[in-house]
Amino acid sequence: MAAETKIPYKIYLTEEEMPTAWYNLRADMKVKPAPLLNPGTGKPLTAEELTPIFCEELVKQELDNDTPYIEIPQEIRDFYKMFRPSPLVRAYCLEEKLKTPAKIYYKFEGNNTSGSHKLNSAIAQAYYAKKQGLKGVTTETGAGQWGTALSMACAYLGLDLKVYMVKVSYEQKPFRREVMRTYGASVVPSPSDTTEVGRKILAEFPGTTGSLGCAISEAVEVATKNPGYRYVLGSVLNQVLLHQSVIGLETKAALDKYGIKPDIIIGCAGGGSNLGGLIAPFMGEKLRGEADYRIIAVEPASCPSFTRGTFAYDFCDTGKICPLAKMYTLGSSFIPSANHAGGLRFHGMSSTLSQLYHDGYMEATSVEQTSVFEAAEMFARVEGILPAPESSHAIRAAIDEALKCKETGEEKTIVFGLTGTGYFDLVAYQKYNDGEMSDYIPTDEEIAASVAKLPKVGE
Amino acid sequence: MAAETKIPYKIYLTEEEMPTAWYNLRADMKVKPAPLLNPGTGKPLTAEELTPIFCEELVKQELDNDTPYIEIPQEIRDFYKMFRPSPLVRAYCLEEKLKTPAKIYYKFEGNNTSGSHKLNSAIAQAYYAKKQGLKGVTTETGAGQWGTALSMACAYLGLDLKVYMVKVSYEQKPFRREVMRTYGASVVPSPSDTTEVGRKILAEFPGTTGSLGCAISEAVEVATKNPGYRYVLGSVLNQVLLHQSVIGLETKAALDKYGIKPDIIIGCAGGGSNLGGLIAPFMGEKLRGEADYRIIAVEPASCPSFTRGTFAYDFCDTGKICPLAKMYTLGSSFIPSANHAGGLRFHGMSSTLSQLYHDGYMEATSVEQTSVFEAAEMFARVEGILPAPESSHAIRAAIDEALKCKETGEEKTIVFGLTGTGYFDLVAYQKYNDGEMSDYIPTDEEIAASVAKLPKVGE
Repeated sequence: MAAETKIPYKIYLTEEEMPTAWYNLRADMKVKPAPLLNPGTGKPLTAEELTPIFCEELVKQELDNDTPYIEIPQEIRDFYKMFRPSPLVRAYCLEEKLKTPAKIYYKFEGNNTSGSHKLNSAIAQAYYAKKQGLKGVTTETGAGQWGTALSMACAYLGLDLKVYMVKVSYEQKPFRREVMRTYGASVVPSPSDTTEVGRKILAEFPGTTGSLGCAISEAVEVATKNPGYRYVLGSVLNQVLLHQSVIGLETKAALDKYGIKPDIIIGCAGGGSNLGGLIAPFMGEKLRGEADYRIIAVEPASCPSFTRGTFAYDFCDTGKICPLAKMYTLGSSFIPSANHAGGLRFHGMSSTLSQLYHDGYMEATSVEQTSVFEAAEMFARVEGILPAPESSHAIRAAIDEALKCKETGEEKTIVFGLTGTGYFDLVAYQKYNDGEMSDYIPTDEEIAASVAKLPKVGE
Repeated sequence: MAAETKIPYKIYLTEEEMPTAWYNLRADMKVKPAPLLNPGTGKPLTAEELTPIFCEELVKQELDNDTPYIEIPQEIRDFYKMFRPSPLVRAYCLEEKLKTPAKIYYKFEGNNTSGSHKLNSAIAQAYYAKKQGLKGVTTETGAGQWGTALSMACAYLGLDLKVYMVKVSYEQKPFRREVMRTYGASVVPSPSDTTEVGRKILAEFPGTTGSLGCAISEAVEVATKNPGYRYVLGSVLNQVLLHQSVIGLETKAALDKYGIKPDIIIGCAGGGSNLGGLIAPFMGEKLRGEADYRIIAVEPASCPSFTRGTFAYDFCDTGKICPLAKMYTLGSSFIPSANHAGGLRFHGMSSTLSQLYHDGYMEATSVEQTSVFEAAEMFARVEGILPAPESSHAIRAAIDEALKCKETGEEKTIVFGLTGTGYFDLVAYQKYNDGEMSDYIPTDEEIAASVAKLPKVGE
């Protein structure tokens, strides 16, 4: 262990050094991400069409491909100070364990009660809803990270929140549910009899344990039918990537403080909220030709949208009520195997990241879940943080890159995003500890079957 | 919210500013804490009698009433850097919520995977065991904070660990158990058939769900019967308070950095590990006549050792196999009501803190659990941290003091210890959220009955 090094174990920015504006990656993209389409008309969605669903200011941010920096309102900056700046950690212990010449850093976003980076966008979305004079917001949650983050933000601002939680998670993750309730949210198992779509699904499939697609449909229905409510979403959207850029901006400021230039930047990718935020300022430099970095997206082998998906317009939800987005997708009817415990189950990917990947600005790799949990456990033991399964995909890839450096003797600097903690994922850890976890890779036929069902619009 | 203030939301020390030595409060006490007694002979325990149970260096620390500063070995300081310095947080949002002129600070010890301050002593005890060339250590755990912390420390040092976990917790807190297993600990539900005492208890009380006293007995038996093993303990002992002084030393350094002098220092008190650590340097100044502070211990009304106990020699464990300690005690046969969900269930208290309380250097107060959870929920919503029930006793008392300031208009500075997070206490939160939590205060007769059974030695 490098006790005498000049680079501390944890680099913290001071409050004065914290970002005062989010960075909008799209402003520096020569090829902009394709617009969201109205599934009915096949035409790009206008602000007028989006404002009944989303808050006005968020619609502006969603459609703004030109403004590079958008000021973070003071109220949000104050909230950020409660859990930010997050530490950029030098993984001295992991380096020693691996006996690698690589220098490994990770940006840890788990030191807040929601346990993940989701809070960065939750407070922004809740703030704009409050500012618009709304009574409340609705959302869906699967594993519960986003719902918890949004509960915290809404409690802080005194905003009403209704969370539609996929029924199987509601029942199997009672503690997540209780955190949300402690923060004053109303948590409804989905499908429920509180919405038309819920009642319809319950009638058609009695005993169903729900799906994210159904929960989205219920949350959107409630938001659009109740005056004073809007719907909010924790990933995929451009606005979410914008808010999450605070991760990358802090990371870059911390590295700059010590004159460190990373060679490789690694992030796990589900819908893209963490990856898009972490890489934002680095990708900006790359797009402007000011610097070069290897940027790697890591996804589960069981849900490989970047590495085995198709770049096409698709629905964001399995219920097919949401706008169409152009993205790398496995098809909205693709559902990862039930034995996949590691999160990142979304069939598609952020349009912005999809365009960047398509244009060759980043790489993608997929990893199998037992090797992800193996990396997670090693990391927990040497670095002292129990990582979320999602984050552990990035850990796996970072370890693999560090081991390559060991072979070649290269002293590369690797930065990865540690999105959150695994406190609420212990059922999955137990499966791994008991040797009951297996891997699953979809066949080409399975992927082809769901890709064949892609909508024909926007071609 | 005071956005423009000069005092940041979170005061972090740099690594260079972190303490390099623990502070041994006993060195400044005119009346030293009474020695541990051998229950057989009634005579003070010698180092020779203690070393078959505890590591040699820890026995030295346990018996050292004179050395004021004991250097923290570099290896432990390196480990501390993985999760320390912990932030001293200015509770701006809580102040605004209460509309109090008081200035409230809290030292937050929950930002590590074990979720509490226990890790400060766990790594120290594991380090000395490793240095002595031992193979491993044994311990007991109830709620699991201590067991988790020790698992992390042992994993880091490659030390074997056997945890006897009270059976009812083992079954009701499977996630705590899984964290320990992920860190490589062997976790045994107690009573078990792996020890003589366990087999005896199982034969006598088939179907028992265990007790901390029984788990201690099993852990001690295994440590003393297996060459290369020793027993370690997470609270009550002098050595634990010594290691935990890092909390208070950091707190004082952070306050000094901004020229802040607290008026009131508040800590929750179970066995005394957090309270003793938090107050150490402040109490030192008070003992030396250099400064004055109001120091308040907060305990549950259902287990009120300071406020309603007796200052006398008693067993530390219900099984009556441990040494006798002079302390404020409700009697080792006292068991808090089963409906008490808020932790801090120990019948006694650290000898050092007991002596200081007896000599008038600190105050004590007791609070009821529904008011504790009410404070916890308010705190979670405005400060964004879901607190452990134990820590929430201190939150309750801090809020009460801040509300007094509101009445009198006094701008007092209040510092309290936030020992940990409530991620593994959501069954208790659920009870509170569902309105199913009640209070319980033992009657004078109940306390008198268990105090009547105090041992007659050492009088």
